[in-house]
Amino acid sequence: MKVYIKGGYQTKFGELWDKSLEDLIFESVKFALKDANFDIKNVEVIYIGNMLASQIYNQNHLNSLVSEIFNINIPIIRVESACASGSVAVNQAYTVLKSNLYKNALVIGVEKMTDIPSKKISKFLMSAASSSERLSGITFAGLYALIASKYFSDYKITSRQLADVSIKNHFHASLNEKSQFPFKITLDKYNNSPIIASPLNLFDCSPISDGACTILLSSEKQKNSVEIVASKVATDSISLDKRENICEFKSTKIAALNSFKEAGIERKDVDLLEVHDCFTIAEIIALEDLGFYKKGEGYRSSKEKDSYYYGKLPVNTSGGLKACGHPIAATGVKQVLELFNQINGRSGKRQVKNAKVGLAQNIGGTGGTAVVNILKK
Amino acid sequence: MKVYIKGGYQTKFGELWDKSLEDLIFESVKFALKDANFDIKNVEVIYIGNMLASQIYNQNHLNSLVSEIFNINIPIIRVESACASGSVAVNQAYTVLKSNLYKNALVIGVEKMTDIPSKKISKFLMSAASSSERLSGITFAGLYALIASKYFSDYKITSRQLADVSIKNHFHASLNEKSQFPFKITLDKYNNSPIIASPLNLFDCSPISDGACTILLSSEKQKNSVEIVASKVATDSISLDKRENICEFKSTKIAALNSFKEAGIERKDVDLLEVHDCFTIAEIIALEDLGFYKKGEGYRSSKEKDSYYYGKLPVNTSGGLKACGHPIAATGVKQVLELFNQINGRSGKRQVKNAKVGLAQNIGGTGGTAVVNILKK
Repeated sequence: MKVYIKGGYQTKFGELWDKSLEDLIFESVKFALKDANFDIKNVEVIYIGNMLASQIYNQNHLNSLVSEIFNINIPIIRVESACASGSVAVNQAYTVLKSNLYKNALVIGVEKMTDIPSKKISKFLMSAASSSERLSGITFAGLYALIASKYFSDYKITSRQLADVSIKNHFHASLNEKSQFPFKITLDKYNNSPIIASPLNLFDCSPISDGACTILLSSEKQKNSVEIVASKVATDSISLDKRENICEFKSTKIAALNSFKEAGIERKDVDLLEVHDCFTIAEIIALEDLGFYKKGEGYRSSKEKDSYYYGKLPVNTSGGLKACGHPIAATGVKQVLELFNQINGRSGKRQVKNAKVGLAQNIGGTGGTAVVNILKK
Repeated sequence: MKVYIKGGYQTKFGELWDKSLEDLIFESVKFALKDANFDIKNVEVIYIGNMLASQIYNQNHLNSLVSEIFNINIPIIRVESACASGSVAVNQAYTVLKSNLYKNALVIGVEKMTDIPSKKISKFLMSAASSSERLSGITFAGLYALIASKYFSDYKITSRQLADVSIKNHFHASLNEKSQFPFKITLDKYNNSPIIASPLNLFDCSPISDGACTILLSSEKQKNSVEIVASKVATDSISLDKRENICEFKSTKIAALNSFKEAGIERKDVDLLEVHDCFTIAEIIALEDLGFYKKGEGYRSSKEKDSYYYGKLPVNTSGGLKACGHPIAATGVKQVLELFNQINGRSGKRQVKNAKVGLAQNIGGTGGTAVVNILKK
């Protein structure tokens, strides 16, 4: 049984103070179905990824909320896996379609984060980390700053190489009207931005965002359908101090290995990537963990402009988490939609030429969860 | 592809102040694997159901926590669907085994609720309800009190009939050493207990509990294996005021209809039930929604002692949510384990004679989610 994406829709990402969680769900589902030319009455199962509505709004039970919004009684399942919640939802929908129990599945990723003070959000984001990490008082930027510091020490890169990643992702976002920060940045701007957690500055960090993204998966093909040829989840310890090496994510390596095996393709067949750049250092590590660059050389992707939409292996043409925005559970779905749009040649100014195979990598926490989804025309 | 339960384990339910969330996960998984005579290294995928760790402990990303506890890197998925989280986890594991992508799946349901003041828990429980219900200031007991009041008015029963349900469930719990309240109650005790939300009194309400339950599902049969012959999820509006009739749960009716169809069995084939008695009125409604009693006659089940372990159709031999306890996401898994144990003839003093087919019904919120699982030897 093959699984195809039939269509999808991403809301604008950003500080959307005039839109509620429900509004974002409604908008993304409505237009995703329109894009796929599909009636909600024919959807057989829905997966909804969301991380923080429980903490921010005291709202659990989102599957029932979706039932109410669309007046439907089908199975709806909420999954949560920190920042990987969206692609875990994609993975689960893919898996049940493979089972042949359903023919059509909707996947919603949604997060509404900007209604409360950012200090509270910083606290809630630490729910992706371990209790010992929370008790230490460290923030998520702090955890990734530890990773960056160790990486700088081991592989002799500096913030100059992180800047290349940020500048590239902002460049792509400037070509994406759905992005939270649709503007370019200069090296000067990067260098003069405030430190968040040394060595990471403001432009190394993805923002707090609102947004939703929905895609329709189906075991039936139609015009513009793109096949999901692999989808794999892997896990690792929730605490950074339980890892042998904090400069790589074992979960990404396992998910990548398993998904390449499932897809039956090689790295050289891949035309473009969406990877998890919650912090710039994470993009460099992802490129290495996925096997596209040797250890310590991931920085070359942006330094040598391979990662630009016109480069040898474009990375994060959406603008990535850094510049497109990071409404947590929407991110994993958006990555897959970006690949779908690129492969269908409808990415406008940032269109990758001859895009046929795309890979998305999304992680939760500091790599406690990793998901790799591979799409192929 | 058939799906079997190979074994399982329930921790004691209750106020377990000396045990953490991690302790409960570890204990239930360790002894479930022992019961199934299975090595964790052979588990291919894990589903973990949990509702409130995000709000109580600021702990999301439980799949990664499980990875750390057992030092494994396999796919682990957290699902949440309010009080139905546990049986949604069972359903999802069942579904992926049906897909033949995996052969063995572990299902964990866990909740740790008694470390914080009950006032806070009351607030967090309302995360299963809609924002308008939360804003109204009503509690979950209040929502079910509305249902009970309407039911009393429509079907001419009184608290006397609710008492029958509570007395029966406490009787069963008195025979279950894992239960939170292993003692019988009298009608006098019921009548003299304080009102929680009129007409519901203390003995109509399930308690706040800690506990975990784990089962191992497999597509391979072994001695003592019991087949899951159907597992269905259905949803409904999250708000009570969006329902046509609050004296029945459409989600249960749909899930029941679909699961009887999937199982290819009739109601008369069913030997025992575990149903969702978060409040006594819910047990009566469940028996009607599942089709075992006519509308308005569900009370007869306990009045006429059909529901006792030695009766015509035993209901909640575990003690139910009321008296076995209700560590939210553990409940749905416990229901299935109770049926598994009964069918294997290992339920001791509360053993149902010739139990071969069992049905479990678990709901989230006020019926916004319903899951029906059917087991057959």
